[in-house]
Amino acid sequence: MTAEIPVDGDALRSDIERTAQFGAIDCEDGIGRTVLPGTPANGQARSYLVDRMVAAGLEVRVDAVGNVAGRWAPPSCDPDAAPVAAGSHLDSVPEGGIFDGPLGVYAALESVRAIAASDLALDRPVEVVSFTGEEGTRFADGVLGSSVAAGNRSVDDALALSDGEVTLETALDDIGFRGDGRFDASEWDAWLELHVEQSGTLERAGCPVGVVDSITGTTRCQVTIEGEADHAGTTPMADRTDALAAASELVLALESAATEIAAADSESAVATVGSLSVEPGATNVVPGRAELSVDIRDVDPASIERLADTLEATLSELRADRGVAVEYERPYDIPPRPMADRVYGALRDATCRLDVAARSLHSGAGHDTMEVADATDAGLLFARSRGGHSHSPLEHTDWRDCTLATRVLATALADLAGATDA
Amino acid sequence: MTAEIPVDGDALRSDIERTAQFGAIDCEDGIGRTVLPGTPANGQARSYLVDRMVAAGLEVRVDAVGNVAGRWAPPSCDPDAAPVAAGSHLDSVPEGGIFDGPLGVYAALESVRAIAASDLALDRPVEVVSFTGEEGTRFADGVLGSSVAAGNRSVDDALALSDGEVTLETALDDIGFRGDGRFDASEWDAWLELHVEQSGTLERAGCPVGVVDSITGTTRCQVTIEGEADHAGTTPMADRTDALAAASELVLALESAATEIAAADSESAVATVGSLSVEPGATNVVPGRAELSVDIRDVDPASIERLADTLEATLSELRADRGVAVEYERPYDIPPRPMADRVYGALRDATCRLDVAARSLHSGAGHDTMEVADATDAGLLFARSRGGHSHSPLEHTDWRDCTLATRVLATALADLAGATDA
Repeated sequence: MTAEIPVDGDALRSDIERTAQFGAIDCEDGIGRTVLPGTPANGQARSYLVDRMVAAGLEVRVDAVGNVAGRWAPPSCDPDAAPVAAGSHLDSVPEGGIFDGPLGVYAALESVRAIAASDLALDRPVEVVSFTGEEGTRFADGVLGSSVAAGNRSVDDALALSDGEVTLETALDDIGFRGDGRFDASEWDAWLELHVEQSGTLERAGCPVGVVDSITGTTRCQVTIEGEADHAGTTPMADRTDALAAASELVLALESAATEIAAADSESAVATVGSLSVEPGATNVVPGRAELSVDIRDVDPASIERLADTLEATLSELRADRGVAVEYERPYDIPPRPMADRVYGALRDATCRLDVAARSLHSGAGHDTMEVADATDAGLLFARSRGGHSHSPLEHTDWRDCTLATRVLATALADLAGATDA
Repeated sequence: MTAEIPVDGDALRSDIERTAQFGAIDCEDGIGRTVLPGTPANGQARSYLVDRMVAAGLEVRVDAVGNVAGRWAPPSCDPDAAPVAAGSHLDSVPEGGIFDGPLGVYAALESVRAIAASDLALDRPVEVVSFTGEEGTRFADGVLGSSVAAGNRSVDDALALSDGEVTLETALDDIGFRGDGRFDASEWDAWLELHVEQSGTLERAGCPVGVVDSITGTTRCQVTIEGEADHAGTTPMADRTDALAAASELVLALESAATEIAAADSESAVATVGSLSVEPGATNVVPGRAELSVDIRDVDPASIERLADTLEATLSELRADRGVAVEYERPYDIPPRPMADRVYGALRDATCRLDVAARSLHSGAGHDTMEVADATDAGLLFARSRGGHSHSPLEHTDWRDCTLATRVLATALADLAGATDA
């Protein structure tokens, strides 16, 4: 395959900017949108996507949990061959940016349009996919539609999820996007997603794109530390069992252990205490109880276990040294997902062939690709984020980077679909 | 003065138990009440007190901020002499105990009844006082009525205080306890208060009563630490500016400094971070902002300044080492109040004369006496608290200890009022 794939950056930009109008918010800096899954704004974004897919000659289907796929089976391909799929999601966090999600969906669609306009012949059909509810701000913790496609969550379980007022089923009915059946990612020969990086690694490296080698594993723990609530004035220092002081030791122990592992062993290792609440929380009362959430991530499962061990060991020390009672749950444990070699290779080859400066990196954030990787060979491509901003109206990827990244995506997609010069 | 003062423990208990019925709450353990100032329950407690004062032959007045005084001028006294006053408060914290406040009011009333029943002649009149709003759970930070009596707050300022819905003035009108004028504590020759200890010092020392030598000073600071909110998965450890990790260092630095000062220099020194809130407070976001309250207390002003210096120095280090921005306010600064030698002495003498095991101690909590001490010679007596519990239905002082402490109070009161055997 030597032919140029004529990616049209203006068409891509137009699609993303049109999508940005749905759920658009007023903001002083940047361009923002709020598009929770199953809302009217989400319905508008979906309808626009369907229109664009139809205009590109794709055959559109919607599955029972609202995932949307547009199938392109060019005359050259074997229509019964397992397709190569690519896409992302259209929903956003509240007051999020316009690139996170839509870039991946419309880069996939533009790839199909560009391949169709090229002289390439494909062996396999291509599917452009938009998953329901990636962000986890309504109905589920995230990667909702992709978890169903990967077989990690049943259609019935997904439809029954509620935001406290309505179920996903009702919300999808309301916007006319509850279809039939289930997209089965294991029937795809391979999967590709382009996403904004959401961090500053590529910017610092001076690379417009990055090829992800692994998606980080994530372990989340809920910790409760019980001390004794006492009068802040009448309780001598020596008689206190201060839950917040104990919690502070835990925060610092985790920070220190993660910093050490990141410096010495696995630079992607991170540990975060993102929330901490104190009871009774009064100025003049020694804290009797502290609740913390701990988020541990790495591409190396061994680092995750080392940090979980640090958590447990620190809690034991706090129990022994400070006399606090501790409880500890680990309700969320997602293993690292290495990307498939052949998909990673196709993306890497594409950057070389197109002479696009790229580097390998891991993804510290979860993505739909994490779920799909359980069902088929998957790959993830990142486009450089200005200032590393994401989940904010400040999120921005230079339009030239969007185009470059889409050219890489299209080239890898064509490659995986068995493209040959027609 | 050699005559016995026949304190009636049953009468005292009856008054406290009747008062406990107003605002009584259901609770599994202990006996609790919720009596915020100016509420119907507070009105009931006040009306009962007025009835009991009248029954004891006292002349009752209510001042403009709802402070209640019952004056007893026995025939032996010079009615124009400055009176000796004693009392406490009737309000409680939400779900508080039944001794904190009422013990001091009814011990003073029982002292008057008992002195009247004795063979003692007094030189000075005695006033039994119940102050408005000591606890600071409505309208003000606390010691509301006593601050007006001490001249530390104007009547108008006090009446204009609002709980967000009504002013103190309206609330007092509603329960029929807005009187006229201002009780002026500087017109009292001396002041005495009996209060439950609210800590375990007396219990550990095996003493039913304690004579307070000084009320702790209190400094409160509000601290804001600004870091950078970042994605917990995609932000490497080395690139973080974690506001919670910085706050954790501050919590531990203050704990450590206070522990050191308490061990080496001033055992009453304490520092507490009682509240801490984190923003955005999401599991998967590095904390961008932390707000803390710091409460520093000691009877020695030098310790308070050392701890405030530790706070400032730690914040400077955090700014330099972690790159956080810090803000720091010190809106509340109450100096330590040593008790008047002659009142302390009268209480100490009474314990000796009655052969009651007692120890000297400081008060780590604020009390109405703290305010009154600015206007006249003041003393504070503590009764042992079981398990050190207070501000809780578990608060309990053995009824025999209540009686013993009241005997000490009555003896010191008579002494200060110039009692002689009739």
